[in-house]
Amino acid sequence: MICENITTKNGHLHFNNFDVVDLAKKYGTPLYLMDENRIRKNVHAYKEALNKYFGDSALTLYASKACSFMYIYKIMMEENIGIDVVSSGELYTAEKSDFDLSKAYFHSNNKTDEDIRYGIEKNIGYFVVDNIEEALVIEKICGDLNKEQKILLRVTPGIDTHTYEADKTGKIDSKFGTAIETGQALTLVGEILKLKHVRLYGFHCHVGSQVFEEDVYERTSKIMIKFFSQVKETYNFETLEYDIGGGLGVRYVDDDPSFNLDTKIKILATCIKEECKKYNLNVPSFRIEPGRSIVADAGMTLYTVGTIKKIPGYKNYVSIDGGMTDNPRFALYGARYSCFLANKMNNLCNFKADLVGRCCESGDIIAKDIMFPSDVSRYDIVAVATTGAYNYSMASNYNRLPRPSIVMLKDDKDFLVVKRESLDDIIANDII
Amino acid sequence: MICENITTKNGHLHFNNFDVVDLAKKYGTPLYLMDENRIRKNVHAYKEALNKYFGDSALTLYASKACSFMYIYKIMMEENIGIDVVSSGELYTAEKSDFDLSKAYFHSNNKTDEDIRYGIEKNIGYFVVDNIEEALVIEKICGDLNKEQKILLRVTPGIDTHTYEADKTGKIDSKFGTAIETGQALTLVGEILKLKHVRLYGFHCHVGSQVFEEDVYERTSKIMIKFFSQVKETYNFETLEYDIGGGLGVRYVDDDPSFNLDTKIKILATCIKEECKKYNLNVPSFRIEPGRSIVADAGMTLYTVGTIKKIPGYKNYVSIDGGMTDNPRFALYGARYSCFLANKMNNLCNFKADLVGRCCESGDIIAKDIMFPSDVSRYDIVAVATTGAYNYSMASNYNRLPRPSIVMLKDDKDFLVVKRESLDDIIANDII
Repeated sequence: MICENITTKNGHLHFNNFDVVDLAKKYGTPLYLMDENRIRKNVHAYKEALNKYFGDSALTLYASKACSFMYIYKIMMEENIGIDVVSSGELYTAEKSDFDLSKAYFHSNNKTDEDIRYGIEKNIGYFVVDNIEEALVIEKICGDLNKEQKILLRVTPGIDTHTYEADKTGKIDSKFGTAIETGQALTLVGEILKLKHVRLYGFHCHVGSQVFEEDVYERTSKIMIKFFSQVKETYNFETLEYDIGGGLGVRYVDDDPSFNLDTKIKILATCIKEECKKYNLNVPSFRIEPGRSIVADAGMTLYTVGTIKKIPGYKNYVSIDGGMTDNPRFALYGARYSCFLANKMNNLCNFKADLVGRCCESGDIIAKDIMFPSDVSRYDIVAVATTGAYNYSMASNYNRLPRPSIVMLKDDKDFLVVKRESLDDIIANDII
Repeated sequence: MICENITTKNGHLHFNNFDVVDLAKKYGTPLYLMDENRIRKNVHAYKEALNKYFGDSALTLYASKACSFMYIYKIMMEENIGIDVVSSGELYTAEKSDFDLSKAYFHSNNKTDEDIRYGIEKNIGYFVVDNIEEALVIEKICGDLNKEQKILLRVTPGIDTHTYEADKTGKIDSKFGTAIETGQALTLVGEILKLKHVRLYGFHCHVGSQVFEEDVYERTSKIMIKFFSQVKETYNFETLEYDIGGGLGVRYVDDDPSFNLDTKIKILATCIKEECKKYNLNVPSFRIEPGRSIVADAGMTLYTVGTIKKIPGYKNYVSIDGGMTDNPRFALYGARYSCFLANKMNNLCNFKADLVGRCCESGDIIAKDIMFPSDVSRYDIVAVATTGAYNYSMASNYNRLPRPSIVMLKDDKDFLVVKRESLDDIIANDII
């Protein structure tokens, strides 16, 4: 199985030891499941590796854009880690969950004045400042409120991760941050250090998503630490925090690569310490921002089969009661998934079909060329694994389909953490 | 300008004669605007052409997946046309708008039992049946309720429209309908004609989207009418309705092609009549399902500029306060748009930049290589034209961004038809 929390018993698929066919019956489909034990296990792996190799000043920040709802911030609060938020909406969700906002880092290439004011008023820990316009607005609002604001500055190290086009965010040609290579980042630091109410603590970068490649974080760190040295030389400013962003890869299908997190962090820590020594710098406090690798394999989506279409000489289709509305990742990126016919796990899978959604759009595909049992039929339950990241968070009401509920699985308890949308929810803002 | 409802006055962009800079100030951004006069004009063009060439039995159905909210069904009701809905959500929205559901056609490759029961209980005009499973569920529920249900059967004529991959839905390899070429459609008709409670009225097909190519509907009709003849020969069943689906193209940018609707319908009607004559068939009542071509150019989105990024030797970026959350069409299809700096319309546009959103994702692009005035700066207003279709309907809360409001512009009145989502709306279904 693609993840150890997925097993088979009595011909049914189990997720975190729950029979998913029972869950589909109890809660209806489409349905998002989340395995709280797995989320915490993933968080622990980061915490332990960071503590071991960077010491107790290091902090893991959950990149909540991967999956944001109130209960998940409660988990991160209990785990005593920080969060990265990218909008007032994520900040508001965290705030209402009583998350300690001093451990929140506010990202985004384009924060509005309202976002910035809201963060400052709520005493958010850090803004991860993307550009000079943002720094000037923080300066102005902090001036009005007679406050100081801690920030990190987002810079682009010019690393190409060789991952999917839309995911390359550390390269120079990016809407995010300011380029080191062009000298613009160094200039911007000078401008920011002149501001009265803005307190620069360090730097952030993010090299992309689904990173497996061995040395991308080391290559990045060499560029970043050389930059910290230039900043020190130019402005006598010492970098206190180094936030390397997120992006560690997740296995969606069996032929995706894997890696050992402990080893990866160990190699990175060694590299960072060596580079700091080389430039005679103190090692800054380390930050990492996993999102996908915390929640992806803690998620599973359940669907009910509606129709099976066999077109001789062409292709077969299995249609389910969700689609690009609850999981747009095939439509957006051609993403791949591991799929199972959850109620017929012991049957031989010799029927190849595309798993497609119910939206009126040909591109509404969940996964291509999936092997199903040949007796797949209406009312069967399909499970799609590793849907915890960028599924619920990217869900839409296209075709006016209500977004599914999220059921959390913890130890031997299953409980709703996000209610299914009703048809009344969908028209709630309509005026006639 | 890309559409005649867009003009410039006193250096400001106007849409349906409203100064959009004033509207941005009044309602905030991001903001969807819709031009009700244009919607009605587009509907009139279809109604008039159909009446002229097909007579008064023909009916235009608004494909509401393009843009579905309560007020739009009110317009279609007043215009006395039908609608195509693809889910219980769209049907519910129409019902709550007091739309006459006897003029509603229920599509979708995968209707659930709940969808079917809901449609039957509400006396929906037609199901456009996609597959045998659906027909059997209709038969069963109608049997339970002692009702009859009118249906059309969706078939695939095997036409390749040469439009974008995801939009080709009339070809044989499709999740929609049943193929004529393989003989499966003819067999399915036989099975359906045996059902007691299901009344077959005719056939539906849909060849794809953004169709400009001259003869695609004629090629389709030749295949369809030959099929009607086979159906008559085999089962002595006369096709009463022929629903050709939607898909007529819309101009997004200046180099998109254009066509004359009246001429297009005239040529199509001539072809259909000739083919029916050839096979000695009565001409069935004609249905057409425009969605995009009714609402696309009646829509415009307004944004506020946040930051301008100039990367020497690489590229420039203008970031705005919306993005793939309110318009995912670049991310999904690489769609192109015409964009304007609405408050500086008289300034020379000599600064080339990508117009990008505020989401934490490199693929969050609205349009590439747009020419802006070189003094574009924070707080300027950007207008993106032709966003009436598949923008609001596909919008998400990714990054927990609230979906924008929709303001309708009619004659000299501007008024809200969909309220902006609040942060409380976003957490409304969260349980902690």
